[in-house]
Amino acid sequence: MSEHRPGPVVDTTASGHARLRPVAPRDVRITDDFWAPRLRRNREVTIPAQHQQCETTGALRNFARAAGSVGGGFSGRYYSDSDVYKWIEAASWTLATDPSPELADRLDAVIKLVAGAQDADGYLNTYFSVDRVGERWTDLVVRHEMYCIGHLVAAAVAHMRATGRTDLLDVAVAACTHIATRFAPGEAPGTCGHPGLEMALVELYRTTGDERWLRLATWQLDSRGRGVLDGSEYLIDHQPVRAQDRVTGHAVRALYLYAGMADVVLETGDASLRAALERLWADLAGGKTAVTGGVGARWDGEAFGDAYELPDRAYNETCASIAHIFLAWRLLLLTGEPQYRDVVETALHNGVLPGLSQSGTEFFYQNPLADAGRHRREPWFDCACCPPNIARLLASLPGYLWTTSEEGLWAQLYIGNEAALRLADGTPVSVALDTSLPWDGAVRVTVSPAAPSEFTLFLPLPGWAGDDVTVVVNGAPVTVSGPWVSLRRTWAPGDVVELTFGTPVRALVAHPRVAATHHRVALARGPLVYCVEQADHDVPVDDLRLTGAEAWTADHRPDLLGGVTTLTADGSAVAPDDGPLYRPLAAAPAPGTAARVTAIPYYAWANREPGAMRVFVPLADR
Amino acid sequence: MSEHRPGPVVDTTASGHARLRPVAPRDVRITDDFWAPRLRRNREVTIPAQHQQCETTGALRNFARAAGSVGGGFSGRYYSDSDVYKWIEAASWTLATDPSPELADRLDAVIKLVAGAQDADGYLNTYFSVDRVGERWTDLVVRHEMYCIGHLVAAAVAHMRATGRTDLLDVAVAACTHIATRFAPGEAPGTCGHPGLEMALVELYRTTGDERWLRLATWQLDSRGRGVLDGSEYLIDHQPVRAQDRVTGHAVRALYLYAGMADVVLETGDASLRAALERLWADLAGGKTAVTGGVGARWDGEAFGDAYELPDRAYNETCASIAHIFLAWRLLLLTGEPQYRDVVETALHNGVLPGLSQSGTEFFYQNPLADAGRHRREPWFDCACCPPNIARLLASLPGYLWTTSEEGLWAQLYIGNEAALRLADGTPVSVALDTSLPWDGAVRVTVSPAAPSEFTLFLPLPGWAGDDVTVVVNGAPVTVSGPWVSLRRTWAPGDVVELTFGTPVRALVAHPRVAATHHRVALARGPLVYCVEQADHDVPVDDLRLTGAEAWTADHRPDLLGGVTTLTADGSAVAPDDGPLYRPLAAAPAPGTAARVTAIPYYAWANREPGAMRVFVPLADR
Repeated sequence: MSEHRPGPVVDTTASGHARLRPVAPRDVRITDDFWAPRLRRNREVTIPAQHQQCETTGALRNFARAAGSVGGGFSGRYYSDSDVYKWIEAASWTLATDPSPELADRLDAVIKLVAGAQDADGYLNTYFSVDRVGERWTDLVVRHEMYCIGHLVAAAVAHMRATGRTDLLDVAVAACTHIATRFAPGEAPGTCGHPGLEMALVELYRTTGDERWLRLATWQLDSRGRGVLDGSEYLIDHQPVRAQDRVTGHAVRALYLYAGMADVVLETGDASLRAALERLWADLAGGKTAVTGGVGARWDGEAFGDAYELPDRAYNETCASIAHIFLAWRLLLLTGEPQYRDVVETALHNGVLPGLSQSGTEFFYQNPLADAGRHRREPWFDCACCPPNIARLLASLPGYLWTTSEEGLWAQLYIGNEAALRLADGTPVSVALDTSLPWDGAVRVTVSPAAPSEFTLFLPLPGWAGDDVTVVVNGAPVTVSGPWVSLRRTWAPGDVVELTFGTPVRALVAHPRVAATHHRVALARGPLVYCVEQADHDVPVDDLRLTGAEAWTADHRPDLLGGVTTLTADGSAVAPDDGPLYRPLAAAPAPGTAARVTAIPYYAWANREPGAMRVFVPLADR
Repeated sequence: MSEHRPGPVVDTTASGHARLRPVAPRDVRITDDFWAPRLRRNREVTIPAQHQQCETTGALRNFARAAGSVGGGFSGRYYSDSDVYKWIEAASWTLATDPSPELADRLDAVIKLVAGAQDADGYLNTYFSVDRVGERWTDLVVRHEMYCIGHLVAAAVAHMRATGRTDLLDVAVAACTHIATRFAPGEAPGTCGHPGLEMALVELYRTTGDERWLRLATWQLDSRGRGVLDGSEYLIDHQPVRAQDRVTGHAVRALYLYAGMADVVLETGDASLRAALERLWADLAGGKTAVTGGVGARWDGEAFGDAYELPDRAYNETCASIAHIFLAWRLLLLTGEPQYRDVVETALHNGVLPGLSQSGTEFFYQNPLADAGRHRREPWFDCACCPPNIARLLASLPGYLWTTSEEGLWAQLYIGNEAALRLADGTPVSVALDTSLPWDGAVRVTVSPAAPSEFTLFLPLPGWAGDDVTVVVNGAPVTVSGPWVSLRRTWAPGDVVELTFGTPVRALVAHPRVAATHHRVALARGPLVYCVEQADHDVPVDDLRLTGAEAWTADHRPDLLGGVTTLTADGSAVAPDDGPLYRPLAAAPAPGTAARVTAIPYYAWANREPGAMRVFVPLADR
């Protein structure tokens, strides 16, 4: 067996239609003050705590039960297996960057437990073992059997790419073989009420080279719109995926599905799938995305709303932000277009990160843009999809920082790191990126090819920066234009690029058709969206008003919320009002009083005493 | 047996703490052009169609099954019986005002079916018959057994008061006797996850004079907050009802519960219950009521939101508006305060009426304040609470038009009618009320006591009218002040009072803490709330903008939507915008284009081709 070469998260290295190739998490070490402590906490606190939750809830025991080694009943929901698979994925990526014999042993034990639960015919789902064997594959609409196998495959691929081990991969291949037999491409339409298997199958194809998995993934996509899932729009079965142009239904399911479509397009270039993806993305980005990158506005059904339905009390499931990143990342690999990179950055900082408490042990399932003070993070959920999803994304984060292409090297996220990469032609390049982001706009990239080498270094001009950037290469200013700073030259070891982005406070408004936030502004600075929280205010935060033209002061406060830059300005507060709930529009509004307004990053809310929070602050009536 | 004296809907005739006494529906004939056709359609179309639905869904058959006269399985949900009971109530009140041998026969047949399903011990719920007898009373949290008996009692009381018949009342008494034995006051705490039985028990007490039912109702109220319903806040079991001060949980359940509390207070004057009611009403009216009178903002759980959480896409269940009327009507009978009358009027016209299609055969369950065009009425629902609830309210509407007191006679709703009433001292008075409302503000009341008689005639000054009214008695102007026009004199047969209310178009805004509708206005005129609907506009309704100072033209269009007064004015529309979903606040907004704006009554929306609708229209940025 050849030496293990660590692999990336989404491996487009050999994908015929990818513009960009990713790098392996193991080749990148995150070093900055913002993310490095979060990854350490993920390793040291979150992943052990989640293993314990899988013990406590019985999710691990279910596998032993299915293997016949313990008795008793099934615990949890019919998709509890996926909690364990996501934990395996998180642990695997963690081992890639931070070897730990203790974690490796624990992971081995879990994998043995999983392998032991598999039937001889490859079937694997502990809910449908022992007393429910007869119910297998009787309910594709509800029961998540393929979804769970999707997480098994994702875990197995991550485990292989992180460690070189194939024991879990063998389990995954056997499970997929079972599905490919039961729902054979071209013969038996089959797809799952909860997508997820599609992208996993393409990844399995990328890992094994076996085209069966690509064919099965495509077949799963094209099984939609044939009534397998009752034609449900909520389950995105109302039309063939190739005909769709409107993002609808359950947000996580929809975006996992579209991510799988993108994976197939990356491999095949399938023109009608690609055209559908472009239409769906336009619908998503144009009217169904929160300012935080959160998606899925509706609490009923965890679903997308109509276009421009973007209320304060958005559902914005943490998993949906992760799914949003999955989709955007694949479209970025396909096209190299900066809009997708921007979504990855926004959703990561403002859609996923709020899902995690400062302690690393409590989680948000929903991420509304305003709250009266009762929505708080919890240690686990009956439906526990979000916590291990955060853990696996954070563990794999080093793999999202760089990409390569025939043209050269692309930075994707401004997260401080040191990386040992190879260009497409095999040239080894060491890079170091230092940055004060997300707090301030200084970025320094040191490029050290093994030997002087001509290529282009692409550095993103984020949407939040606009043209507000200076670029200096080895001390000499250069003129750039967006959306990528592309620096083609013969790079020599130790070459330095310094970028300085402006980070003014931005008062953002939504498209005029977004009625819910009409005449209100959200504050943002750099990649971060801000909010006002009651803990920083004497007057009720719902009474605060801005003009949008405030002179904001940014102060970094290492003592606050794990270290955040706050924004303060002189705003106003409406006068206390005990008038009726509805009243005639006044010719002249009552004068407000002066009020100091303090904003904190949205990701950090709900880490202090309960109180109201609001992202979109009303503009004062003039 | 003495001659049957028709009874009212909520009979406070002998209630020790009621300020007002109602009149019997049978004594009032609605005669106007707006409501009379709606009541006719209720009789001729809706009630027969709903009987058919009870046949089709098996709700009626369930009773035959429970009686052992047919086999097969149970159909529908564990509360399907309540559909039938609500139909009985609707049919009974209809017979009170509009005798029909055909309907009477059909009603008799249904009542026989119900009576036949009752067990010897009084138990009655067809879900828990045949194969589920052992599950009776095992799940007060979920299973609605007491709720269904509440509707049985309400139906039985209505049937008795409308027809003088006691056959269904005997069934109801037996069922309540069963409950009073199983959950005996002072001994066995018992109350239902879905309230409703409380107010029915008080009504049973009023009808039978048997204090057991008042005691049982009070016991049901005081069984809350003891963990019977798991201490659930959603089920309003988190605190004793006497300690509550925040309207929370499932909206219909909460308001049915509070209506039951009000009924007990009407009988007993219980001070702590009354104080709780006042606190809860302040919370409800102060921050949790839509401009339409709809309540229960959240789709998840059909529940109340936090204070001032009043979004466009409010749930506003039709049943919750009916519950709102039930509560407000009881508080009006208790206090005579006009705020409660105003809620009855607003919720009737704008919360309940939208629930019914122009055809009388399709219904809204939810009544959002904006929609993209996909929310449409349906003929029935799997959970079919709303349709027969509308039918029974409309059938009983004549009972909501007048009340009496020791002081005299009170008009409550400006709905054209002729009534043969008796004052509290027994004096017979005929009254006729003619009005052009809800379209224009002319009201003419002709008062004809059997003989000249001194009493006060109270006529409401609705909240929407403010002081904009002229009053003329027998041709002579009189000076009045609100909130009631109280005219004390010796009334002689044929005396005439003419009121003229101003009906300007009102541009309403919400309390400053309602962020969701910040800088937007809702249009109202008279008792009606208006909306803009796509069918009347060339530009997307979401692009429309108002200043709030428009000069509106009101046109009555008999041809449109069954005859409505439309409002038109010159507004504007924002320019088409293909910019990003979020963008910097512009110093100067893009100029809009002129656009003619047409508003229709909110109740009439979704009766034409599907299209967007909006109640709160954004104010133009200046």
